[in-house]
Amino acid sequence: MREYGKVICETDKKSGQNRRLVFAADLGGTHLRAATIDELGRVHFHVKQKTPAAQSADQIVGELVRAARDGERQGALEGCSIHAICVAVPGSVNVSAGRVVKAPNLPCLDGFDLAEKLTKELKRKSILENDANAAAVGEMWQGAARNCRTIICVTLGTGVGGGIVLGGELWHGVNDSAAEIGHMCVEPFAGVVCGCGSRGCLEVYASGTAIVRMTREARPRYPKSVLQSEPLTAKRIYCAAVKGDQLALEVFRRMGAYLGIGLSNLINVLSPEMIVIAGGVVNAWELFVKDMNQQIAERSFPVAAAELKIVRGECGDDAGLLGAAKLALAI
Amino acid sequence: MREYGKVICETDKKSGQNRRLVFAADLGGTHLRAATIDELGRVHFHVKQKTPAAQSADQIVGELVRAARDGERQGALEGCSIHAICVAVPGSVNVSAGRVVKAPNLPCLDGFDLAEKLTKELKRKSILENDANAAAVGEMWQGAARNCRTIICVTLGTGVGGGIVLGGELWHGVNDSAAEIGHMCVEPFAGVVCGCGSRGCLEVYASGTAIVRMTREARPRYPKSVLQSEPLTAKRIYCAAVKGDQLALEVFRRMGAYLGIGLSNLINVLSPEMIVIAGGVVNAWELFVKDMNQQIAERSFPVAAAELKIVRGECGDDAGLLGAAKLALAI
Repeated sequence: MREYGKVICETDKKSGQNRRLVFAADLGGTHLRAATIDELGRVHFHVKQKTPAAQSADQIVGELVRAARDGERQGALEGCSIHAICVAVPGSVNVSAGRVVKAPNLPCLDGFDLAEKLTKELKRKSILENDANAAAVGEMWQGAARNCRTIICVTLGTGVGGGIVLGGELWHGVNDSAAEIGHMCVEPFAGVVCGCGSRGCLEVYASGTAIVRMTREARPRYPKSVLQSEPLTAKRIYCAAVKGDQLALEVFRRMGAYLGIGLSNLINVLSPEMIVIAGGVVNAWELFVKDMNQQIAERSFPVAAAELKIVRGECGDDAGLLGAAKLALAI
Repeated sequence: MREYGKVICETDKKSGQNRRLVFAADLGGTHLRAATIDELGRVHFHVKQKTPAAQSADQIVGELVRAARDGERQGALEGCSIHAICVAVPGSVNVSAGRVVKAPNLPCLDGFDLAEKLTKELKRKSILENDANAAAVGEMWQGAARNCRTIICVTLGTGVGGGIVLGGELWHGVNDSAAEIGHMCVEPFAGVVCGCGSRGCLEVYASGTAIVRMTREARPRYPKSVLQSEPLTAKRIYCAAVKGDQLALEVFRRMGAYLGIGLSNLINVLSPEMIVIAGGVVNAWELFVKDMNQQIAERSFPVAAAELKIVRGECGDDAGLLGAAKLALAI
């Protein structure tokens, strides 16, 4: 199913100005979100659809091109043209080459020159960015980190992603592989094995997937828990916690403690102005924030922690999309 | 005792050029090293003395001023003048204010405006830098990281310090408190308590102090070890390991594994070109490198680790001094 969003704000038709739009897309494992967005962060045309269970990269390119052309037609009615394109990709990206390196949930894109293909099809300069990096830029442009220059954005979703902005610039590291915050080790030897091949990564304690696993592990100790039955989902565990279920509450406390350990490492190493916590799991903020803050207080250098703000993301599911737009506008 | 170093290289007197020298000092907990150094990294005048067990900041200022004046006189004979001053301080520093924030081994300097005082006494622009940050700059200028732009320098000494250079610039973070690499957590709950107030910090597993403590802890399991007798020192443990003592070998293996865990976190978060390992403990490289590398191979993202080099520092005890000089030259 394809949902078309309404035009959130009207452009100033009266001025007759040919406004610069960009086409941004966030290629999630579950949903493909795409939009045309202007320099003020206003969404002109928006589409959200299930990410095609694509066997080939061309199918994904086809969906992106279709959405971009729809956005272009809509823009033309408003006297706006599309300047550039940026796609946020759930995986590792070679930013300078515009190539997807590895996208675990969209393996048909592995090694694919997506930016070049889009440039060719749409006749516009196209770039790629890792989705968590894009979310960091989105929160800095239109979200919780407006007016900040140095932030870390941690995205708690199915996995744990991260984006690091230092002095106003995304930090990519060598080979565009920095900010793998979900794969910092927070439990070295007794830790749970992670999909990345390591063990004890932050991702296996602070993601939605981890919440489900930790609930299942701790269940034998809580025979009275409403969570004894299947199916377990992060949302159901959250609802149980809100109603006071002791098993669910313990799981969120544990998740908060490990998140706090990971964030302390980032604070001690990078000393940012702000840490933005985004992604679906952040809805459980009240359930994990106390334990997170306790670990941070115990483990962070006081000078680094003194003026640091740790806040919830404000862009919700649109953080990556907005960040991709901001990056396209900078081309 | 005060050792005066010989002039390592003669300046080009014939050219009659008034070469630019800087005065650099590394205010270690044990030794105060100071030198005049030129733009090519050549040491003109060098002094090493025990750091005065100072009751007052003025006494330390007095020693620094004396060394600077000696260096100035020597420079004048060569037709060189001192352009600026930089002091590397073993503790946290407010770089922009030129103030020592906290120097655990030289508490008389806590809160002291050392740069201002030196500027006043010596009539030269003076700056301060954290000693591990200065060492990173030194290794990049004259040591193992020449030709690199993005490095992390980890200093394994009495404690564990760190300096992060990103794209050619020292990363200070907000409040100049970044790069506290020794206080990344590598053993969250079962970890040993650290002087910083946290537990399980890298410093309690990879410093000289940690090597002594870990030897003492493991001793009951190795009744045949030559290290059953006191006094235990890191150097003695190193010598025992070289001779095949099983207790000592285990301690260095353990140290290497924890170091590898800490470095993996840095690799996954920052993806640098190079990690330089400096400080006295690096002499035991052959004893810990295998376990360090094994953890890095298991825990680092392959893309980030692919072209990364991990090397020993080349500047030895002079890394901080050389880095301070480079920073003074940049004024």
